[in-house]
Amino acid sequence: MAERPHTPLLDTVHVPADLKRLSDAQLKQLVTELRAETIAAVSETGGHLGAGLGVIELTVALHSVFDAPKDKIIWDVSHQSYPHKILTGRRDRIRTIRQKDGLSGFTKRTESPYDPFGAAHSSTSISAALGFAVARDLGGACPEGLGDAVAVIGDGAMSAGMAFEAMNNAGHLKKRLIVILNDNDMSIAPPVGAFSSYLTRLYAEAPFQELKAAAKGAVSLMPPFFQEGAKRAKDMLKGMAVGGTLFEELGFSYVGPIDGHDLEQLLPVLRTVKARATGPILIHALTRKGKGYAPAERAGDKGHATARFDVVTGEQKKTPSNAPSYTSVFGDTLVELAAKDDKICAVTAAMPDGTGLNLMAERYPSRCFDVSIAEQHGVTFCAGLAAGGMKPFCAIYSTFLQRGYDQVVHDVAIQNLPVRFAIDRAGLVGADGATHAGSFDITYMATLPNMVVMAAADEAELRHMVATAAAHDSGPIAFRYPRGEGVGVDMPEVPQVLEIGKGRIVREGARVAILSFGTRLGQVLKACEALEAKGISPTVADARFAKPLDREMILDLVARHDALITIEEGAVGGFGSHVAQFLADEGVFDDGLKFRSMVLPDAFLDQGAPDEMYARAGLSAEHIEAKVLDVLGVAQIAGKRA
Amino acid sequence: MAERPHTPLLDTVHVPADLKRLSDAQLKQLVTELRAETIAAVSETGGHLGAGLGVIELTVALHSVFDAPKDKIIWDVSHQSYPHKILTGRRDRIRTIRQKDGLSGFTKRTESPYDPFGAAHSSTSISAALGFAVARDLGGACPEGLGDAVAVIGDGAMSAGMAFEAMNNAGHLKKRLIVILNDNDMSIAPPVGAFSSYLTRLYAEAPFQELKAAAKGAVSLMPPFFQEGAKRAKDMLKGMAVGGTLFEELGFSYVGPIDGHDLEQLLPVLRTVKARATGPILIHALTRKGKGYAPAERAGDKGHATARFDVVTGEQKKTPSNAPSYTSVFGDTLVELAAKDDKICAVTAAMPDGTGLNLMAERYPSRCFDVSIAEQHGVTFCAGLAAGGMKPFCAIYSTFLQRGYDQVVHDVAIQNLPVRFAIDRAGLVGADGATHAGSFDITYMATLPNMVVMAAADEAELRHMVATAAAHDSGPIAFRYPRGEGVGVDMPEVPQVLEIGKGRIVREGARVAILSFGTRLGQVLKACEALEAKGISPTVADARFAKPLDREMILDLVARHDALITIEEGAVGGFGSHVAQFLADEGVFDDGLKFRSMVLPDAFLDQGAPDEMYARAGLSAEHIEAKVLDVLGVAQIAGKRA
Repeated sequence: MAERPHTPLLDTVHVPADLKRLSDAQLKQLVTELRAETIAAVSETGGHLGAGLGVIELTVALHSVFDAPKDKIIWDVSHQSYPHKILTGRRDRIRTIRQKDGLSGFTKRTESPYDPFGAAHSSTSISAALGFAVARDLGGACPEGLGDAVAVIGDGAMSAGMAFEAMNNAGHLKKRLIVILNDNDMSIAPPVGAFSSYLTRLYAEAPFQELKAAAKGAVSLMPPFFQEGAKRAKDMLKGMAVGGTLFEELGFSYVGPIDGHDLEQLLPVLRTVKARATGPILIHALTRKGKGYAPAERAGDKGHATARFDVVTGEQKKTPSNAPSYTSVFGDTLVELAAKDDKICAVTAAMPDGTGLNLMAERYPSRCFDVSIAEQHGVTFCAGLAAGGMKPFCAIYSTFLQRGYDQVVHDVAIQNLPVRFAIDRAGLVGADGATHAGSFDITYMATLPNMVVMAAADEAELRHMVATAAAHDSGPIAFRYPRGEGVGVDMPEVPQVLEIGKGRIVREGARVAILSFGTRLGQVLKACEALEAKGISPTVADARFAKPLDREMILDLVARHDALITIEEGAVGGFGSHVAQFLADEGVFDDGLKFRSMVLPDAFLDQGAPDEMYARAGLSAEHIEAKVLDVLGVAQIAGKRA
Repeated sequence: MAERPHTPLLDTVHVPADLKRLSDAQLKQLVTELRAETIAAVSETGGHLGAGLGVIELTVALHSVFDAPKDKIIWDVSHQSYPHKILTGRRDRIRTIRQKDGLSGFTKRTESPYDPFGAAHSSTSISAALGFAVARDLGGACPEGLGDAVAVIGDGAMSAGMAFEAMNNAGHLKKRLIVILNDNDMSIAPPVGAFSSYLTRLYAEAPFQELKAAAKGAVSLMPPFFQEGAKRAKDMLKGMAVGGTLFEELGFSYVGPIDGHDLEQLLPVLRTVKARATGPILIHALTRKGKGYAPAERAGDKGHATARFDVVTGEQKKTPSNAPSYTSVFGDTLVELAAKDDKICAVTAAMPDGTGLNLMAERYPSRCFDVSIAEQHGVTFCAGLAAGGMKPFCAIYSTFLQRGYDQVVHDVAIQNLPVRFAIDRAGLVGADGATHAGSFDITYMATLPNMVVMAAADEAELRHMVATAAAHDSGPIAFRYPRGEGVGVDMPEVPQVLEIGKGRIVREGARVAILSFGTRLGQVLKACEALEAKGISPTVADARFAKPLDREMILDLVARHDALITIEEGAVGGFGSHVAQFLADEGVFDDGLKFRSMVLPDAFLDQGAPDEMYARAGLSAEHIEAKVLDVLGVAQIAGKRA
């Protein structure tokens, strides 16, 4: 175990109320200790580091000024909530974060009353905070009481339309509501000038409205130091923020920018707001991701997400892997195909690295588009590209594609436009838990007319599917694949274009056929090894397609076996349901068929190692084996009709 | 048939290219004729009138200046596209609009090359136009060529986050792209002052950049006549528009406001833009819905959507109905419950009338929220309200709830918050066609853990389900019901709270059981009458719940019958799939069960009368009867395994 930092003051803080008795000077000391503890904890567990370090001062200031849990502090995305968890009664478990049975890496209502609204996807906090504010004013009740609603949202999250919708509505409703814009853009010049420090102090000392007026008048004197940011969304935000124009037009009072690492600015501003705010107010705080930890500040991603690391050197302790990640197989294959076909292009929503499109962006920057956190726009932008004769790959994680679902239906599927959906993080995802699981995409995609839905059984299959999608020009097509490394199969030199709607037999057996869709295939084959020892030799097929189904292959399997078991890494309503619908339509059940469909359970699963999660989900080799034995009526100790 | 207007000039226009030979004076004449023809056509068919009348001049100006179909004119929502259809080779079919086999009430790619991108849901046009613009610059190809991309979007549609996302991305990419903000807010004062006319003429006559600068300088002289609009979104937009600040911050050049009913402003502005624009540009045109037709201008909704009407008087020809609409049953019941429970509140996304929440807004305005076209925010706002101890009803059409799907998953279902989803327009919707059909909600909602999913079989059942949802406080619950009138059953004085997960037997029979989910029940009972005549008496049950299923009732039905047929107004993956999954898990298929699941077909269905559409979908009484005969092996002429 790593050495623990010396934290005499932090050791006396168990709940936020303990901060009320600390002087401002002590709060400064607490910041130092909280930062050290955060670094030490994440060094042992891995996880999100940079974002938490960027809000240490903000966390201390918020909890010293506001009265959680009565006041609702809502962290957007909430990967920056580790320091908040340390201050809110969870320090003793902070080194279990993102582990099985440990703390969640995000805020979570069931974990603590200090987490009034859970998150993980971005840009939800203002909507939620507005809900609390309105509930409060309508006489709503919750066990901790209903006080102030405070949303803390990053500048990146502000690019999502949802945040705009929420601001727009909040300004209209005029309820007391506090939004803290945690502006941690790293690309801009040192953000806090003399004027804004002056503005902040001025504001904190004098009455609210008067100072706002003064600030307004002085705004024209400010240097336009925000104008050179890299991204348009951020440019806009900054351009606006100088005068707060955007926020004021949306009905918010605007305060800022202030130095989010300076308690001497944060505390008086928050105290004034707490004492005087009437309607919606936005506090614009400038922070730096990774702040106060040199290895994070130096890193390109500012220590965004990290494996366990050495606190002194910052060196991460990663386990080397032999197989390539699915993400990189997708990225590499796409680049390879793009080299031969200049119509291929790609779109991501703020996830160039996570989706592997960074490779495309490097090689073919003019054909790779990061639309920022804007899945709705991203999908329809792809539809427009397809209508214009391009071959767009829309690379969005399964869980985030939910954000663009209407666009998938309305703009892509109904118009039958050949958008290629590369759905990464399909199935259970491990440490990120339920909010990031890709459990529903088979169901919500395969139900759509015109949509072709594939799942890769291994990394070689994924390579074929990228090529298949590129070649499929008559309508939309989706292919899903999991987070993490492949299984180490030989990679084909040249990817094949698969025949649409055709599966493949993986092994021939008898009595029972297992029809797998996706990467459970490995576990299916493992189960078969165990079954062989018991004299049972299942046939195994890889469906490849949930839509259209390989009807011929399925009827052939049914004809040759007593039992058919489907398995997929998705919830009910997906692949197994399409197979069942087909079998029912064909009258196959009329005379009896031992049919089973293994799907994710009807529950949101907490984080754990992926294998462990699939075991909990009932989709491991052992469960497959048990299902085969059960369906064949072979008695076994653990065998029970599930 | 109504008398046709005299349209000598319009009669010479068959495609937009015909406009090129007309003088500006002739274009003015064409406007008059096009307006008359639009009014005359809609008077015969019913449909969207006000929006089209508001863009007559804009339609003529766009088609005279731009070169469709090479230039892509993309109408947002596109219910304002009737005049566009008249000018683009579809005048001969304009009186078939929204009828079976007739023109769609919206733009549609398969209908005409002049409809480069179909729509019906709002706020997609800028994303699509950007796709075309980028495709053009990347060398994409389409049969008509790729020229300018022009999005025409209303001020209401601008409140959706998606439009913000698209503007943000377009400003970043800096491609030549034209967005016309069709600002038809009716609540504002006469919008076009002397200054903006001056500005427009100035702009049109002098070079682009110089004039922009001049305009900027002059902006401060403008009267703040936009400041008093009713809604915040619109206020914001107007406030911004005075200086174009928002749009300029987003990287757009801004022109306006101009009078969208004055060709002398529209034509020079569009010509200048066509000749000179380099990057993204926004033209802010002020129009009036219903313009030029007194009965529409006088109407509260400005002739938004109308039945057939008398052109002279404007009187609509509506067929009276005896049964209340499902929408009003929901609205009335909610108000009734809200009177007794002050925690009940309601949220709609710009559909107060369509959802029946206008009744709630009248009686309990402080507990009824219209968040504007902002489904994402609306859902999470409800989640916040629920977390704050309120009982929110989130009333969004089935097809539009797709816009908030991630929020349903991430903010409501995962957190198990008691948000009540009132899903109107479930199933096929008639004249609005495929884009408005509520085909997928059973599938995408029932796959979610924690979610309770109900469907009302008739208007009395709906009344019970509203009460059931109000009483269900342990997690989220959804209830779906169709567009249109109920079946005329007696309405219960006091709505009952139904037991969660319990269905009901509607009639007892033998051999075959039909398990209905939703309003197909009427057709099921009709089929039973026909079957009785053939000596077959099915048992009929109303499932009420797709989730949780009434397992006991289903097993009982299976035990007592040879065949089980499920039926629902939804696509595969929904109710029937959940039943099949349950039966498979229970091993019911092992020994044979004649199981069939009747669902919507795997196709997007074009508009027609709802009954006719259900007949096409294979879900009418005749199909149910045939299915029963088929499954029981009773020969009949039309009987065939489907």
